[in-house]
Amino acid sequence: MRQSQMFIPTLRETPQDAESLSHRLMLKSGMIKQMASGIYSYLPITKLVLNNIEQIVREEMNGIGGVEIHMPVLHPKELWEESGRWQAYGKELMRINDRHDREFALGPTHEEMITALLRDELKSYKKLPLTLFQIQTKFRDELRPRYGLLRGREFIMKDAYSFHVDKESLDVTYNDMYQAYSKIFSRVNLNYRAVEADSGAIGGSHTHEFMALADIGEDTIVFTEDDDYAANIEKAPCVETEKPSGEFKTLEKVSTPGVKSCQDLADFLNIPLKNTTKTMVLKSEDELIMLLLRGDHELNDIKVKSYFGIEEMTLADEADIIEQFNASPGSLGPVNTKVKVYVDYQVKSMSDYPTGANETDVHFINVNHERDFDVEGYGDFRFITEGEYLPDGSGPVKFMRGIEVGQVFQLGTKYSEAMGLNVLNENGRSVPVLMGCYGIGISRTLSAIIESHHDDKGIIWPKNVAPFDIHVVTANPKDKAAAEAAEAIYETLKKEYKVLYDDRKERAGVKFADSDLIGLPYRVVVGRGIKDGIVEVKARSGEESQEVPVDELVSFLNANY
Amino acid sequence: MRQSQMFIPTLRETPQDAESLSHRLMLKSGMIKQMASGIYSYLPITKLVLNNIEQIVREEMNGIGGVEIHMPVLHPKELWEESGRWQAYGKELMRINDRHDREFALGPTHEEMITALLRDELKSYKKLPLTLFQIQTKFRDELRPRYGLLRGREFIMKDAYSFHVDKESLDVTYNDMYQAYSKIFSRVNLNYRAVEADSGAIGGSHTHEFMALADIGEDTIVFTEDDDYAANIEKAPCVETEKPSGEFKTLEKVSTPGVKSCQDLADFLNIPLKNTTKTMVLKSEDELIMLLLRGDHELNDIKVKSYFGIEEMTLADEADIIEQFNASPGSLGPVNTKVKVYVDYQVKSMSDYPTGANETDVHFINVNHERDFDVEGYGDFRFITEGEYLPDGSGPVKFMRGIEVGQVFQLGTKYSEAMGLNVLNENGRSVPVLMGCYGIGISRTLSAIIESHHDDKGIIWPKNVAPFDIHVVTANPKDKAAAEAAEAIYETLKKEYKVLYDDRKERAGVKFADSDLIGLPYRVVVGRGIKDGIVEVKARSGEESQEVPVDELVSFLNANY
Repeated sequence: MRQSQMFIPTLRETPQDAESLSHRLMLKSGMIKQMASGIYSYLPITKLVLNNIEQIVREEMNGIGGVEIHMPVLHPKELWEESGRWQAYGKELMRINDRHDREFALGPTHEEMITALLRDELKSYKKLPLTLFQIQTKFRDELRPRYGLLRGREFIMKDAYSFHVDKESLDVTYNDMYQAYSKIFSRVNLNYRAVEADSGAIGGSHTHEFMALADIGEDTIVFTEDDDYAANIEKAPCVETEKPSGEFKTLEKVSTPGVKSCQDLADFLNIPLKNTTKTMVLKSEDELIMLLLRGDHELNDIKVKSYFGIEEMTLADEADIIEQFNASPGSLGPVNTKVKVYVDYQVKSMSDYPTGANETDVHFINVNHERDFDVEGYGDFRFITEGEYLPDGSGPVKFMRGIEVGQVFQLGTKYSEAMGLNVLNENGRSVPVLMGCYGIGISRTLSAIIESHHDDKGIIWPKNVAPFDIHVVTANPKDKAAAEAAEAIYETLKKEYKVLYDDRKERAGVKFADSDLIGLPYRVVVGRGIKDGIVEVKARSGEESQEVPVDELVSFLNANY
Repeated sequence: MRQSQMFIPTLRETPQDAESLSHRLMLKSGMIKQMASGIYSYLPITKLVLNNIEQIVREEMNGIGGVEIHMPVLHPKELWEESGRWQAYGKELMRINDRHDREFALGPTHEEMITALLRDELKSYKKLPLTLFQIQTKFRDELRPRYGLLRGREFIMKDAYSFHVDKESLDVTYNDMYQAYSKIFSRVNLNYRAVEADSGAIGGSHTHEFMALADIGEDTIVFTEDDDYAANIEKAPCVETEKPSGEFKTLEKVSTPGVKSCQDLADFLNIPLKNTTKTMVLKSEDELIMLLLRGDHELNDIKVKSYFGIEEMTLADEADIIEQFNASPGSLGPVNTKVKVYVDYQVKSMSDYPTGANETDVHFINVNHERDFDVEGYGDFRFITEGEYLPDGSGPVKFMRGIEVGQVFQLGTKYSEAMGLNVLNENGRSVPVLMGCYGIGISRTLSAIIESHHDDKGIIWPKNVAPFDIHVVTANPKDKAAAEAAEAIYETLKKEYKVLYDDRKERAGVKFADSDLIGLPYRVVVGRGIKDGIVEVKARSGEESQEVPVDELVSFLNANY
């Protein structure tokens, strides 16, 4: 491809408002243009890379028997009401009315669609297992779109769905998908981890997330040094501690004027933060629930939802608290309260600790659970912290940041039961179909590749996804002999390689800067040396360029590319 | 691909509610499933054919220097307000509000987007010409979606846009596109015509439509036997006739009780319909305009809009007419009226004709224009009819029905002027960029292919777009030796061909019926003959099957495919 015919509007300045490295580099190298918040046009270079990623995904999906289909963007409201997600999905689901005022969603995911598609067509277990996938534009109205294509509102996903008559079959396909995903993320050159994850609102039971390691990642990965364990921090379990025995001090009330936070309390009592506790009040339907955590720990709402089997976790607001306790939120505690109290595993081993006294600016010290208040249950309600050990004794755990680029998920019968997708099994009995769903963020994967393949001059494309293999650049566009030679080299190389030929009438400095930004694996510079039949060849990932005789260029590239 | 892993839910019954042949065949052969009115899921066979069509389109676009991009579905309202189409596009434009109540359109076409995309990036004529294209899902909220994928609300388009500093360059690309489109529609085996068309509401000046010939087509193509002329009927011009000279009869008023239509009048006066006239009253802004046409002719609103230079043509309603004329719409006429009267070219040569008298149930006879009323202008206001001659003397014209599968269009500066897309030209002057736009309905093309490639048993795919090349079918799934032989044949053939292998445990009758429905170019049946090393080979387009020894199968197919 001649660069003069391409459209690669590179920038000289680094865009200031882009918050992530991949976002900055994509803007600077002329790959994307923002049309609205979280909504981008993908320019030619991006489209070529996306095509390469999509092709790899398609090959690996076909490799495990996946069949490609294409479902609509517009989803009838009725289907999402059947699954219960029309309400549950909230504001991220974009909704539209047609000219007849019928309501549709813009698909953020296609469980409802594919279940509706198959329930009329699948009658017997004999047609199972079945794996269908699509590569398609999806919509999610993010509250805060950011980081370019990493968190957009309109993006490209590969979503696959599998259908099974029994759990064994689902496990086989789940494992096939896990392996296929591993191949895909290896082929696109991502440094990734498959981590255990929480199943969250989508329902189902068993799930792994594929995380590309990157500092910008919004997810925290918890892992052990030996790599035997890796999980999303939302999922990683905390150890249960032992209840202490022995003598406890006497419960005492102290005045704590101005103490609002655990840190205030630690300072006031002159004890470490980790020796304090915090009291959280949750609203579950109409009931309030009290949770007692260590002062330096963070509540993990995923674990709380899972413990109580609830869809949404809501913290009580100040009005609820004042009404119930007649005290400010900073002075709450489990002693002398009517609400049920649950204690975090880590607090279980604590003794003689301070809590609020349910009077504004008053605390208890020397509190002990089971002595001073009843415990409704002990549980794992918090995020693990670096350096802790896991319940199975492995550890200590470390943290990394990751970008979620894929997820595999055993849905079970959540959608088939809600929407009536049944088949007759071997015994002639109608049973709900078991389903799996498997997503890859295609446009997000592209960003993740850039996050980990670049230097301060620009992108360094891995060969498997590079928009072109080789960049042929003329150093001086006024040098006619060089231009002719470059033309010939372009014609020769493009028989074996995907070649971008910079035939523009720009200064050498501009061309080299653009070339580094665009980051093709190899660059061939046709410069002054051409009068002696010499070109300069440089790998984008290397430091040094090499002089290569033109008539050895093809064999040089064949040997080195 | 093993058919047992595919998803091809064929039907035994012919769906009764499908109105077109391609719609029926696509449902029957398990290619599509309707999810809502005009909204379909594309099942695996459809996806494979679409991929093939898209690949052909991509190759031909690349062949003329087109560069692929991908623009968003969500279009900010502001851009459509700049072009004036937020209002003008009407209800076909689907509109959505995001969580912040910002308004967006779901793109039915991308002129606004691409103009906005380029206006910040194009500064100089040196970057021109430039041709960008995308293949993407589009949305149009049709009042009456029908004919399956022929008129859907969510569909796949290839849309290309070109950018030029002068008309010569635009003409070159327009011609390249015209040639590329001709190649594309030839390669997908459509019997098509490129016809002159009206530029309509999209603006601009010069345009051709590519019409696939098919009885179901919603467009009428006007052509001459020698194929020198072909146009959309909306565009085909009618000849201007000569004003008659000589003696005219005396104007006379007659009572015409109950005469409402031209046919009523012809019957009442006992004259041919073509000797009557019809008076049409149009509303243009606040003014009423009267048009006089021959009684058997049809008003062509495209020509009327073009003649008067208006965006919308509205017929006066009964209330307007009663208010202005105090007569029923069936009794209107040009004599003694204050509104301006325009006369169709064909009426120009008529004399002594009847018209309404602007009194209910009263007509004039022996009316003559210029004698009995003033003519504001003569014009071409009607659709041409079969057998007429064109203004240049060629003809007589014939009619065909066509499906519009593509359109090439010179937009000129309509969008660049409205939205400020300018470049500096060679003389350093800022000039608006000239644009062309070029569309192909990808999913509609697929339907058009089926409309012209089928028989009463099913689809007959042309090789270039066929989902697979060869269908290997075992006749008796219980015949173990045949199954093993089929397996080996499948493995051999798939090295050179795309093979669908029907390994299902179904009766031979079901398999053959499905195979005919699916319509792959060649079928290889592994039946009883296999014990003598013989298979049956049949071209889907032929009548007879042939016995071929297994060891000659590849060479037979190589020679015949």
